[in-house]
Amino acid sequence: MSHNSFGHLFRVTTFGESHGPALGCVVDGCPPLIPLAEAEIQAELDRRRPGQSRFTTQRQEPDAVRILSGVFSDERTGGHQLTTGTPIALVIENVDQRSKDYGEIRDAYRPGHADYAYDAKYGIRDYRGGGRSSARETAARVAAGAIARKVVPGVTVRGALVQLGPLRIDRARFDWDEVGRNPFFCPDAEAAREWAAYLDGIRKAGSSVGAVIEVVAEGVPPGLGAPIYGKLDADLAAAMMSINAVKGVEIGEGFAAAALRGEDNADEMRPGNRGGPSFLANHAGGVLGGISTGQPLVCRFAVKPTSSILTPRASVTRDNRATDVVTRGRHDPCVGIRAVPVGEAMMACVLADHALRHRGQVGERASIQPD
Amino acid sequence: MSHNSFGHLFRVTTFGESHGPALGCVVDGCPPLIPLAEAEIQAELDRRRPGQSRFTTQRQEPDAVRILSGVFSDERTGGHQLTTGTPIALVIENVDQRSKDYGEIRDAYRPGHADYAYDAKYGIRDYRGGGRSSARETAARVAAGAIARKVVPGVTVRGALVQLGPLRIDRARFDWDEVGRNPFFCPDAEAAREWAAYLDGIRKAGSSVGAVIEVVAEGVPPGLGAPIYGKLDADLAAAMMSINAVKGVEIGEGFAAAALRGEDNADEMRPGNRGGPSFLANHAGGVLGGISTGQPLVCRFAVKPTSSILTPRASVTRDNRATDVVTRGRHDPCVGIRAVPVGEAMMACVLADHALRHRGQVGERASIQPD
Amino acid sequence: MSHNSFGHLFRVTTFGESHGPALGCVVDGCPPLIPLAEAEIQAELDRRRPGQSRFTTQRQEPDAVRILSGVFSDERTGGHQLTTGTPIALVIENVDQRSKDYGEIRDAYRPGHADYAYDAKYGIRDYRGGGRSSARETAARVAAGAIARKVVPGVTVRGALVQLGPLRIDRARFDWDEVGRNPFFCPDAEAAREWAAYLDGIRKAGSSVGAVIEVVAEGVPPGLGAPIYGKLDADLAAAMMSINAVKGVEIGEGFAAAALRGEDNADEMRPGNRGGPSFLANHAGGVLGGISTGQPLVCRFAVKPTSSILTPRASVTRDNRATDVVTRGRHDPCVGIRAVPVGEAMMACVLADHALRHRGQVGERASIQPD
Amino acid sequence: MSHNSFGHLFRVTTFGESHGPALGCVVDGCPPLIPLAEAEIQAELDRRRPGQSRFTTQRQEPDAVRILSGVFSDERTGGHQLTTGTPIALVIENVDQRSKDYGEIRDAYRPGHADYAYDAKYGIRDYRGGGRSSARETAARVAAGAIARKVVPGVTVRGALVQLGPLRIDRARFDWDEVGRNPFFCPDAEAAREWAAYLDGIRKAGSSVGAVIEVVAEGVPPGLGAPIYGKLDADLAAAMMSINAVKGVEIGEGFAAAALRGEDNADEMRPGNRGGPSFLANHAGGVLGGISTGQPLVCRFAVKPTSSILTPRASVTRDNRATDVVTRGRHDPCVGIRAVPVGEAMMACVLADHALRHRGQVGERASIQPD
Repeated sequence: MSHNSFGHLFRVTTFGESHGPALGCVVDGCPPLIPLAEAEIQAELDRRRPGQSRFTTQRQEPDAVRILSGVFSDERTGGHQLTTGTPIALVIENVDQRSKDYGEIRDAYRPGHADYAYDAKYGIRDYRGGGRSSARETAARVAAGAIARKVVPGVTVRGALVQLGPLRIDRARFDWDEVGRNPFFCPDAEAAREWAAYLDGIRKAGSSVGAVIEVVAEGVPPGLGAPIYGKLDADLAAAMMSINAVKGVEIGEGFAAAALRGEDNADEMRPGNRGGPSFLANHAGGVLGGISTGQPLVCRFAVKPTSSILTPRASVTRDNRATDVVTRGRHDPCVGIRAVPVGEAMMACVLADHALRHRGQVGERASIQPD
Repeated sequence: MSHNSFGHLFRVTTFGESHGPALGCVVDGCPPLIPLAEAEIQAELDRRRPGQSRFTTQRQEPDAVRILSGVFSDERTGGHQLTTGTPIALVIENVDQRSKDYGEIRDAYRPGHADYAYDAKYGIRDYRGGGRSSARETAARVAAGAIARKVVPGVTVRGALVQLGPLRIDRARFDWDEVGRNPFFCPDAEAAREWAAYLDGIRKAGSSVGAVIEVVAEGVPPGLGAPIYGKLDADLAAAMMSINAVKGVEIGEGFAAAALRGEDNADEMRPGNRGGPSFLANHAGGVLGGISTGQPLVCRFAVKPTSSILTPRASVTRDNRATDVVTRGRHDPCVGIRAVPVGEAMMACVLADHALRHRGQVGERASIQPD
Repeated sequence: MSHNSFGHLFRVTTFGESHGPALGCVVDGCPPLIPLAEAEIQAELDRRRPGQSRFTTQRQEPDAVRILSGVFSDERTGGHQLTTGTPIALVIENVDQRSKDYGEIRDAYRPGHADYAYDAKYGIRDYRGGGRSSARETAARVAAGAIARKVVPGVTVRGALVQLGPLRIDRARFDWDEVGRNPFFCPDAEAAREWAAYLDGIRKAGSSVGAVIEVVAEGVPPGLGAPIYGKLDADLAAAMMSINAVKGVEIGEGFAAAALRGEDNADEMRPGNRGGPSFLANHAGGVLGGISTGQPLVCRFAVKPTSSILTPRASVTRDNRATDVVTRGRHDPCVGIRAVPVGEAMMACVLADHALRHRGQVGERASIQPD
Repeated sequence: MSHNSFGHLFRVTTFGESHGPALGCVVDGCPPLIPLAEAEIQAELDRRRPGQSRFTTQRQEPDAVRILSGVFSDERTGGHQLTTGTPIALVIENVDQRSKDYGEIRDAYRPGHADYAYDAKYGIRDYRGGGRSSARETAARVAAGAIARKVVPGVTVRGALVQLGPLRIDRARFDWDEVGRNPFFCPDAEAAREWAAYLDGIRKAGSSVGAVIEVVAEGVPPGLGAPIYGKLDADLAAAMMSINAVKGVEIGEGFAAAALRGEDNADEMRPGNRGGPSFLANHAGGVLGGISTGQPLVCRFAVKPTSSILTPRASVTRDNRATDVVTRGRHDPCVGIRAVPVGEAMMACVLADHALRHRGQVGERASIQPD
């Protein structure tokens, strides 16, 4: 079962509510002898942390992570902290919980939020800041993803925002180096400037917009993934769709593949230099038959606009009376921005899990190496 | 683990290769006392069966299903066959396996196919008809889906082809009754006519195109799904992405949500007549926070063009020599057509699993019923 | 996968090493709306806590538990803390970690301990106090068990020590009320006196002995458990065998059943007053075909003698040199004593999981109720 | 979830009822490129097959196995059938189903059988020959075990009956070579003669007795197993307890360890010749801290007497009326005898699963090799 767990051999279980004492995760199945410092996890958390520009929520969440278990250091490890193969528990204490009156959202269901769904399912919900359905839970994912990256050392996982509201990047200007230079994780410097102006307008209007994120893994060995229900892309789809506010996922050509003809979508091959093929295209996005091909793994996902907006929306109360909801407070005008490191983390977790699963069933490496 | 299993409480494990002796599945966890006849499963299989129009492969696969276990009938059941709560094994013998020379695809990797990926992973592959990666495996899914439908008796799961290649339906003409009247599962009679002409051209050119399928479940009770990694939409995404040739999945507004503003995407509510809200829109596609809202569950997925085409494509052999591949034989010009009942089956399986999971954790029904 | 998780619908994941910062667990799948106070969990932990008599280790471990998530209280809950259906994380900080030189056990493998096995598997181990293999981990189980008990409210789970070293209780004197009155969880007052003298001798000799624990659940509804590999007794066997130092598990008549004849082992039935049978005996220990019968569930398990003793034993160092090992420090002369609440906790967890699983597949209750 | 599945990376799902059309299993996760012929599986099934002596049931069940998937052969494999890494489905058709009146056991609950428990749980049961609870299901386990053995090629798994009713073997005469020479799998020729006379008496009296089986695996590499809930011995305990009629399981010294002192139970070590320790004893039965030590893995389990006997026993009918039950027909006077190959199969499956799991998390082999 997997209510709050993700993965099989590299298995992440997260816990925690937005305004509870703490949130965190347990990473079970991490291989031993991997150097792992709190600072490395913290660095990833800091990329996701809010309040770093005017385009994300102004809440101050230090998101300081603490490792509770699963690592060890002594003179024999040279003082370096190594994983031991036992479960790694990570905890992030919640600190910036403004004491306030939650009466409004306690009784009313915010449209587009999980409020009603949780109440319908459980008959109770922790309404403070969204409780378990808050995007704060994704901090635990990013922490787990920092560990996952170390499980697949030759793999580089990077993400970028490729669409903000209706505005898309110009793919001819796609530049990974640009991603770290603007507050949008935008790979197109010109688009980033345009987005800043656009999102200022959205923000000032108390509105919000959606976004599309692209995550790419390079250096993925061929052979990861397993037919039929443990396909690499099926697990990626679940991973991305499980992120708050995500409404769509695509691999490689994605929905555009529907309009293509077979000859155009075929990723032709030539003999490569490593004993396997050299691909001439990557419409498949790095996965065929649910198994990685050794090409870059390309995944995009769509995030809906933040549901917390200042425009009043019609809703009902818990006892089924009509009401209008306005969500005041400090909210992201585009929650998709901070979803970039979350998407990276999820892809890293999926790859770590499948790398271990592949090694378990088949052995150290695939038979045929592509270029 | 889930190499070839799907679901948790309602768990489907499929097996079988395209040209092996048989394929089938084991459905574990089905509740007892549900009437289940082979004919009911067969009826669903017949909807997926090829060779029913010139727009699908001309292979003749009767796909006759046999129930090996998990049902029982005697005078006390009035001769009706009931499920017993034990695993239901279904087998479909393979019959139309043309004896032919597989030498060509034995040694060469068909572009867009899983050939190379399987060989890289396992060092061996059953190349006859695609082996395990053949779309024949989806027959087992459809059989399992027929059982799943009976586990959620108040729920109607229906699918339709809403895009064939570049041609989309006119949503104003969407008519579920039309779906059964044309060979495309197309809900728009006018589009179906247009598609017939278009696909004839594709077929005669030895080419292929992709498609987009929409699957909708009505009557879904609120409360199905579980945060965070057992979200209803995350499981749906995995289910659909696990279908052969699928490259994208979206829920409700899907990728279009990225371009919307918060006010437009909010599904407003009014007090309903059953104690819970009445929704004024369904941008969410029936799921919020990973939990069903009681609105129709709406999922779309994109299928790439059939990789088996007559146009030669550059490729390599198993021993890394250059070759050209032409895939002769009887192939679907649009494999997306027959994916419609497969998508329905997967959605039914996801709903059956989540209905049992919800009952397990929370009890018989959700607390608050929407309209 | 289940490296450090136990159960399916009621799923417990534990983490933590003996001398790391903290240990704890995440309980996922707990039903909502169950009142749960930290004090209730603490009460169970206190029963397992060492240092309460001279017959257990003199380490002082307050084992103060903190709930990090999954509960909620406000004016609407009357200030009572209720479970919300989301994962409940529990943390126990480690406090009594004597600063000492671990050089001896760092390099040598203590016979009967997991030292060598961990090193062989992982190439590293946290040797401080046994690390992950320490019995301290069982504190997390007891905490989880306190929650599990509340998931099956009509069920009473009780344990007792029925054998200490070679000394068995007189079953004619078995008295549950006696269990709380002596430091051995012994249900036979006379045996308890005898054991005190005996164990004093063992303790003073720096030696140790094993024990047998019996755990009984009364009020178990019929129908829990699922053939074939989810049998109630199979899960109980795994649960008990997973406790540190356990070497044997038996249900009902157990190993003695081997010597019985069929007529003597049959649990005859008479018509009962609740529509189902009234059993005349319980050789089966409450489970037939892996499914509970409604009779008391009876399980016994054997704990080997504590491996940490003062008598030198031959061993080897990590670099394969001969050495003698003497384990100084504060150790339980019979680790089986404190295993009593642990065994109870594991049985409670198994029953909670199976109660939810049964409800998931079959519904609220079994069809036929026995007396 | 694991109603009818066992294992994680090497995962076996069984299905089928005693008198249904067929029974079988799906083995998912088997590594590729392993030679596997039907005849090898059949050879194991023949060891379990009834009707081979007067001491087992006289039913004639040829138990002819058919491989439906997951293997492949062509000229490149030299005509040898190899596993492909995809699920291996095995089917055994039921043939010797005597047409008879099941009226008696249809309505009455046989004491000691699962009849009542199944009815209570599911509200229905296939009463013909015990349905799903029949020991026929173990044929599927033995078939799966035949595959498992090939996954751990250096490991030898052997079983023997060490106690028949009250009669134990003389361990000084334990001889593995003797096991195949008598109809009891008895390793002590003298005991076998004694047992024959004893069991003849039991059989003629229409009675039955229990037994104890010992299964030993030699050549197990160190490092298999995973704390805390995936311990090798915890999984073994579940595996053995899941076999029909099993009431107890023990590892190494087992229940006898309770009476030992720490000095006597410690398995001392001396420096070995392969870089790791050489153990001087094996009280632990090859597992410490849930992880294999490289010593022989020793497991025993107790089987209760066959419940089907000719002596009338008091019972109730489905509608709660008093009745007496006599089970006529062809039954094993000691069902424990045929449990020997079943126990071997379960141990082989556990080892195969843990070998793959270890390789997945840690890599090809353990760090330190013992003698």
